[in-house]
Amino acid sequence: MKKDTIKIGLLGMGTVGSGVVKILTGNSENIGHKLGVGLEIKRIAVRDLEKPRAVEVDPALLTDNPDHVLLDPEIDIVVETMGGIETARQAITRALENGKFVVTANKDLMAHHGVELLSIAKTQGRSIFYEASVGGGIPLIRPLKYCLAANRIKKFMGIINGTTNYILTQMSAAGKEFAEALAEAQAQGFAEADPSSDIEGRDAAYKLSILASLSFASQIKIDDVYVEGITDVKLRDIHYAQELGYAVKLLAIGEEAAEGLKLHVHPTLIPLEHPLAAVQNEFNALFIEGDAVGEVMFYGRGAGSLPTGSAVCADVMDAARVLKNEIENGVLEATFTEKPVIPMEEQHSRFYLRLKAVDEPGVFGKLATVFGDAAVSLDRIIQKRSVEGTAEIVLVTHDVKEGRFREALNVLREMPAIRSINSVLRVVE
Amino acid sequence: MKKDTIKIGLLGMGTVGSGVVKILTGNSENIGHKLGVGLEIKRIAVRDLEKPRAVEVDPALLTDNPDHVLLDPEIDIVVETMGGIETARQAITRALENGKFVVTANKDLMAHHGVELLSIAKTQGRSIFYEASVGGGIPLIRPLKYCLAANRIKKFMGIINGTTNYILTQMSAAGKEFAEALAEAQAQGFAEADPSSDIEGRDAAYKLSILASLSFASQIKIDDVYVEGITDVKLRDIHYAQELGYAVKLLAIGEEAAEGLKLHVHPTLIPLEHPLAAVQNEFNALFIEGDAVGEVMFYGRGAGSLPTGSAVCADVMDAARVLKNEIENGVLEATFTEKPVIPMEEQHSRFYLRLKAVDEPGVFGKLATVFGDAAVSLDRIIQKRSVEGTAEIVLVTHDVKEGRFREALNVLREMPAIRSINSVLRVVE
Repeated sequence: MKKDTIKIGLLGMGTVGSGVVKILTGNSENIGHKLGVGLEIKRIAVRDLEKPRAVEVDPALLTDNPDHVLLDPEIDIVVETMGGIETARQAITRALENGKFVVTANKDLMAHHGVELLSIAKTQGRSIFYEASVGGGIPLIRPLKYCLAANRIKKFMGIINGTTNYILTQMSAAGKEFAEALAEAQAQGFAEADPSSDIEGRDAAYKLSILASLSFASQIKIDDVYVEGITDVKLRDIHYAQELGYAVKLLAIGEEAAEGLKLHVHPTLIPLEHPLAAVQNEFNALFIEGDAVGEVMFYGRGAGSLPTGSAVCADVMDAARVLKNEIENGVLEATFTEKPVIPMEEQHSRFYLRLKAVDEPGVFGKLATVFGDAAVSLDRIIQKRSVEGTAEIVLVTHDVKEGRFREALNVLREMPAIRSINSVLRVVE
Repeated sequence: MKKDTIKIGLLGMGTVGSGVVKILTGNSENIGHKLGVGLEIKRIAVRDLEKPRAVEVDPALLTDNPDHVLLDPEIDIVVETMGGIETARQAITRALENGKFVVTANKDLMAHHGVELLSIAKTQGRSIFYEASVGGGIPLIRPLKYCLAANRIKKFMGIINGTTNYILTQMSAAGKEFAEALAEAQAQGFAEADPSSDIEGRDAAYKLSILASLSFASQIKIDDVYVEGITDVKLRDIHYAQELGYAVKLLAIGEEAAEGLKLHVHPTLIPLEHPLAAVQNEFNALFIEGDAVGEVMFYGRGAGSLPTGSAVCADVMDAARVLKNEIENGVLEATFTEKPVIPMEEQHSRFYLRLKAVDEPGVFGKLATVFGDAAVSLDRIIQKRSVEGTAEIVLVTHDVKEGRFREALNVLREMPAIRSINSVLRVVE
């Protein structure tokens, strides 16, 4: 039976949930017109009924019992914006088992249990939509699934964490050191009180694993992703990078090579002319290389109540179209295999290295010999005038196997003429 | 009856058509797997059977009679890549009347007859997909229709013509004048032998009208779009713009205000920090402001065989999903109304003005008085040392009604102290 109104239940009404309510109510006429069917929020499960809400809702809609959403036979679509992993996993599983379509903004959940939940959905003849789990309001999941569907995705590089991009932009543009830029980000609401998941790169790794699963049709384990955060990035390195023609960005990189997948998150030098270098402050962007389309990039706000709500609502509208038209398995889902992941030390990269050496004759020769012995060839060298007998040297290598480069670093660390190895960063072109 | 194989007929096998054939054959396993149904190219109508093809195809597929595609009851999807307006319009109309889904890459056609063809499709219970008509491989139509479906689109600004962006980039980066940069673009294959539609802005205006129709759900007439090309942009203006912190780009701008739509294409000064300023050479990008999502941008190659083919194939896959699942009216189509368009002289803008004046006491005062009398206030002024008694003056105004600004220009033109008015460009922030 085709429906006149499709009823929605919300789990959670925090930042994203409030955005969803605001958009669905504010743009309801427009949305209903496009869909040819009305959308109605029937129930909202929250933890604390008394908490003040960013958006006014009829108190009768609120409940503190998630079952009032999950078990209500009138509710067709369950929107999960409560966050966390285990409770959300159970709730979504129950929703699917009760025949509901699910929309979620939960990246931790999708990174850990995405493939499993998509499989449950398939068994139930339902779907999970998760556009909002990566890149906030920026369309990423849907373009990967549909717009680039005829492509083999070769590689993507993303700025998919707004906090770290804000910090790196502040360091670069305002000449702040990391700690000061972090404090600024916290003051501006772009970093949380506990920023560790963002600044250590874990948030980006979760999102990378969701994007890589979809791009490469492979079930990614979060531990397969190599992760380095930005806590050790120094203002000095950002300045040297600029001198060399690069910006420093926290990039999440996924690539499919003949031997397997490459999955890594780390601060990276990227040429100033690259479109990702122009992504400033809290903005996010995903740069994709497809075999047919070539290079495309999607840019926008990676977080926030209304942007993320925009993505959730697009998913709700997709689910509603499927319901309205009684489409079975109308959603393109990849079959997920398990492709091998290439360990970081086997991968090739270019490296940026900053070190301090004793300023005496022959030191540079020794340095060059170490790299030569490890078959690491050098592309760029900067040496500034030495201070108190110590010279700061910045090197950029040509493409080299990471394991080889690390061996060379270990030899350098043992050399008495090398005072300190201060920074090691990867470089992409 | 659900199908195992969906059959496709092509009209035209030039640049885009060849790309489509290459992608559909090269990625057929992957595409069939995702769709759960195979795609087969059954017939390709071409003008000249003997012409050498960029991609090898079984000669038995080729025909010089379009009816072999349009009337074949086995063909479900007709892909039109032959270009031109009237013949394509008739062919697509016949295809729809014969119950076929249509995919087209034809911007001229969609700009002139899009609303009419979409209406025929609706009557027939079929759809026209036209992602490839704007922005080549960049997903634009589908994101506007689906990903941003819950948004009210407030404004968009696009670099949607690769030829002019290539020329402006060459002028800016390599210090070439327009004519030299155009010759370079022609040598590189980024400009046609007759480049007039590109450099005069008409190509961008066609694409703008397609995007605006969709964004604002209004039937746009091509004559409602104000158009200025880049033929009068001087290297000197690009240098002054850089000095003032701007790049010069040919922007297609669409905006919905309370009083009506604003639709204009012209060379524009845009701040260097704006993401559109970083779009170089033949690349295209569309920057969109939605009421919920905020600012998003889509970037990529706006032309070329495989990029445009990628968009066509995504459309073919969408049509195939609809066919496979026997979805009726499963595509979100706006109802097109006719919204008023605000004439250019009623619109507000900031202006960049370069002029030459006699270098004598009181001239600047007279100039300032003319602007003051027309209520045009000035934001920035550059005056370089005068040469042989003539001073070059560059002005940037605050926001002003275009009609008022033109009145002031007319007064300036009559002033003996003003030697020449060399450039007038619009400025966006």
